[in-house]
Amino acid sequence: MAHIDLNSDVGESFGNWSMGDDAAIFESVSSANVACGFHAGDPTTIAQTCRDAAATNVTIGAHVGYRDLAGFGRRFLDCSRTELADDVLYQLGALQAMAAAAGKRIHYVKPHGALYNAIVTHETHAAAVVDAVLAFGGDLPILGLPGSVVHAKAEAGGLRTAIEAFADRNYTPEGTLVSRREPNAVIHDPEAVAANMVRLATAGEIVAVDGTVLKVDAESICVHSDTPGAVAMAAAVRRGLEDAGVHIRSFA
Amino acid sequence: MAHIDLNSDVGESFGNWSMGDDAAIFESVSSANVACGFHAGDPTTIAQTCRDAAATNVTIGAHVGYRDLAGFGRRFLDCSRTELADDVLYQLGALQAMAAAAGKRIHYVKPHGALYNAIVTHETHAAAVVDAVLAFGGDLPILGLPGSVVHAKAEAGGLRTAIEAFADRNYTPEGTLVSRREPNAVIHDPEAVAANMVRLATAGEIVAVDGTVLKVDAESICVHSDTPGAVAMAAAVRRGLEDAGVHIRSFA
Amino acid sequence: MAHIDLNSDVGESFGNWSMGDDAAIFESVSSANVACGFHAGDPTTIAQTCRDAAATNVTIGAHVGYRDLAGFGRRFLDCSRTELADDVLYQLGALQAMAAAAGKRIHYVKPHGALYNAIVTHETHAAAVVDAVLAFGGDLPILGLPGSVVHAKAEAGGLRTAIEAFADRNYTPEGTLVSRREPNAVIHDPEAVAANMVRLATAGEIVAVDGTVLKVDAESICVHSDTPGAVAMAAAVRRGLEDAGVHIRSFA
Amino acid sequence: MAHIDLNSDVGESFGNWSMGDDAAIFESVSSANVACGFHAGDPTTIAQTCRDAAATNVTIGAHVGYRDLAGFGRRFLDCSRTELADDVLYQLGALQAMAAAAGKRIHYVKPHGALYNAIVTHETHAAAVVDAVLAFGGDLPILGLPGSVVHAKAEAGGLRTAIEAFADRNYTPEGTLVSRREPNAVIHDPEAVAANMVRLATAGEIVAVDGTVLKVDAESICVHSDTPGAVAMAAAVRRGLEDAGVHIRSFA
Repeated sequence: MAHIDLNSDVGESFGNWSMGDDAAIFESVSSANVACGFHAGDPTTIAQTCRDAAATNVTIGAHVGYRDLAGFGRRFLDCSRTELADDVLYQLGALQAMAAAAGKRIHYVKPHGALYNAIVTHETHAAAVVDAVLAFGGDLPILGLPGSVVHAKAEAGGLRTAIEAFADRNYTPEGTLVSRREPNAVIHDPEAVAANMVRLATAGEIVAVDGTVLKVDAESICVHSDTPGAVAMAAAVRRGLEDAGVHIRSFA
Repeated sequence: MAHIDLNSDVGESFGNWSMGDDAAIFESVSSANVACGFHAGDPTTIAQTCRDAAATNVTIGAHVGYRDLAGFGRRFLDCSRTELADDVLYQLGALQAMAAAAGKRIHYVKPHGALYNAIVTHETHAAAVVDAVLAFGGDLPILGLPGSVVHAKAEAGGLRTAIEAFADRNYTPEGTLVSRREPNAVIHDPEAVAANMVRLATAGEIVAVDGTVLKVDAESICVHSDTPGAVAMAAAVRRGLEDAGVHIRSFA
Repeated sequence: MAHIDLNSDVGESFGNWSMGDDAAIFESVSSANVACGFHAGDPTTIAQTCRDAAATNVTIGAHVGYRDLAGFGRRFLDCSRTELADDVLYQLGALQAMAAAAGKRIHYVKPHGALYNAIVTHETHAAAVVDAVLAFGGDLPILGLPGSVVHAKAEAGGLRTAIEAFADRNYTPEGTLVSRREPNAVIHDPEAVAANMVRLATAGEIVAVDGTVLKVDAESICVHSDTPGAVAMAAAVRRGLEDAGVHIRSFA
Repeated sequence: MAHIDLNSDVGESFGNWSMGDDAAIFESVSSANVACGFHAGDPTTIAQTCRDAAATNVTIGAHVGYRDLAGFGRRFLDCSRTELADDVLYQLGALQAMAAAAGKRIHYVKPHGALYNAIVTHETHAAAVVDAVLAFGGDLPILGLPGSVVHAKAEAGGLRTAIEAFADRNYTPEGTLVSRREPNAVIHDPEAVAANMVRLATAGEIVAVDGTVLKVDAESICVHSDTPGAVAMAAAVRRGLEDAGVHIRSFA
């Protein structure tokens, strides 16, 4: 029986500012990328998010980011390997304590925002993330893009890696995401998105914008949590997958 | 054979700003109160401090504080019980990951600065600290002042507590510290301080400013790390204790 | 012809987190309490808010707060007089540059959150706010509660003060706000609120919860911006006042 | 009579952490690059620094930086043009209020650290700095490196620019600084440095590491404030210049 993971970003509120409808997202996903306080997520938000994950039986991943609350971790920060590794390890430890207090633990690492993008190609920052995951112990898999430098380094370090696809994004024939600067970067129709993800989960295929059929070995599907319609989209993807007999479960 | 613990604050540098001569302090103490990032201590500083503790075989304690870098955790912050408990738990988790990466773990909790002072009497914040230590697990003892609310609540919660004395401070006949507003608050002569601490370690006594002999059941002695002469004072206390046959070892 | 000011908090977004519907609030108020970056408001938000104030011809006030983004300035922070005065002056200068770039300037100061409440009675913090306003120059009036320590100190320092009433709050017979812990603290009916504010603007009276008629010399009415129904309430108050022939204009 | 400016970084303490011996540096320089709170400098430090500048009759410049206390502004941060322009304008306004309270004002802008280096070549960030200085008004000159993009854009925008030389750095034949990765990047002998700066001030010449004589049209000389020997070096440069009859005065 086919199965796949659905992941989404949660715990990104901060103090008096709220972000996303986490309670609704928890109804649809099997994995929660929980903010760790450096790009978003104050300790009380994180603690509550871990309890919500426990209550809905969702797997917790560490959504580690650059130290940049003002930029929500979406701006590249040219820190050193040591600084970044220590920042990531600090975040992993903080989240682990919160998860443990909720009867859970961290099961994977998914870097956030600018860090996620940087480590596709940035040797030093990719190495730093791997350093941190190794130092943390427990062999946490790193969730990311196929062919990324961070995956190569993780595997060289003996860590497991996992590939994710993006539910509502169009792909180029080369297998990369169509740039957000292009008008057709995002697919807005939930039914179309759900159908695409069923094909991915059952056949391991994504159809690129030009019709090319791509083989994609994704263990997880990322659904957004902070855009208009995110909750409806996540629910549509889950329903579509379940209706097609695909089991939704954590990859980790 | 008499024995006692010597503790001091370390890891309080932040980024480009350094604080204290940690390397020298590690030569004298048996317990290190390591800053956890909220009042001081960036992740790289914390990581290095944990490695230094490992190298010198010093026990690591969590020096948790209010979220106030600009005030160095020395200003009371009227947060809620939940906020404070979560902030403390977050700090414990972050430090634990750093300690573990250095082959160590947290052995005790000593709140810092304004939080240390607040929880002598502040019911809500004392309860929050105990909440966090219980949530963290592992039965970490809380180091503090005799008769403090936090100790009462910790014991009610099944946690061990430990009392510390301040090496270079004069005591009132009631057993409290002479206020820093008084001219004789601090004892500056290392030999006098060392002699006082030998009496404390061997007889459980401190002589108050008026000559009253106080019974003090301290398991640890706090020596400062960030004042002029701190390193020399710490070394003098250690030497004095060792010369008197007192064994220096962690209380935890 | 009767006139009164309507003020509300704006510019309280921070980075990727938004707060309130400022554009809608600007349609109703004559004075904007603009966050200055210490409790909320990143520089880009502040700059945009000042341009919005210019476009809608709304007067800018400085909504200065404690340095506490995680607590949104709603937690008392026991800083010194010097620290607080310098923090406030820093915020005034930053906002002034933003206002000037939009062709405006700061016309008044309204402390925010925990600072607003503290300086009703806290001598040191009230003095610090007055220190900062005097150091900034330009004789900015301080908007606040009647009988507050900050008003007494401001007047002693030669500054003008202005009193505000809270549109949707019930008052005790003593003229203070009914505590939010009481079930009748807040009036939810926009028509009732509007009628109350018309009476305030035209007769200088507020009817307390027990029917006592209070004389209130308010120059401004505070309408909320961040609660459900805030925009509708603000619009209802403005419409009610205008329908009753009350002119809405800045007090400053 | 020949004259030149001496500038140095000051006001870089933060809360309980101190940086540099500003009081000693103020004895030697004519221009003070005052930290504005984003890479260093809490409001109380800034206020005191402005009063010190007033007391020693030193000209105040704004040492604006990226929003990165943990990195001391020494890490490139990939913010947008709008974000950076607003961050810089915010800092200018904050410092201006502090300077005004001390009877002074800002006379020039010298970006700090990673921002200083970025805007030599980074079009967007250079444009952002110019945007901010123009928005601030008052035609503040921007102090920087010859041939930098920020200077080109500043001049295109009608702003004055000024070039600085680095007292203790060796130059390549191309007129750039020898990289700090090279062993001869820094000149450590105060007498040699002073002699070099006398030649610069009197003849407009710097001798590169290979003997090439460079024509350098510097209006200011940067002396460090936070390295070992910084105070002695600054004093030696000043004394050497004065002994050679060069008048030390602000360029702005």
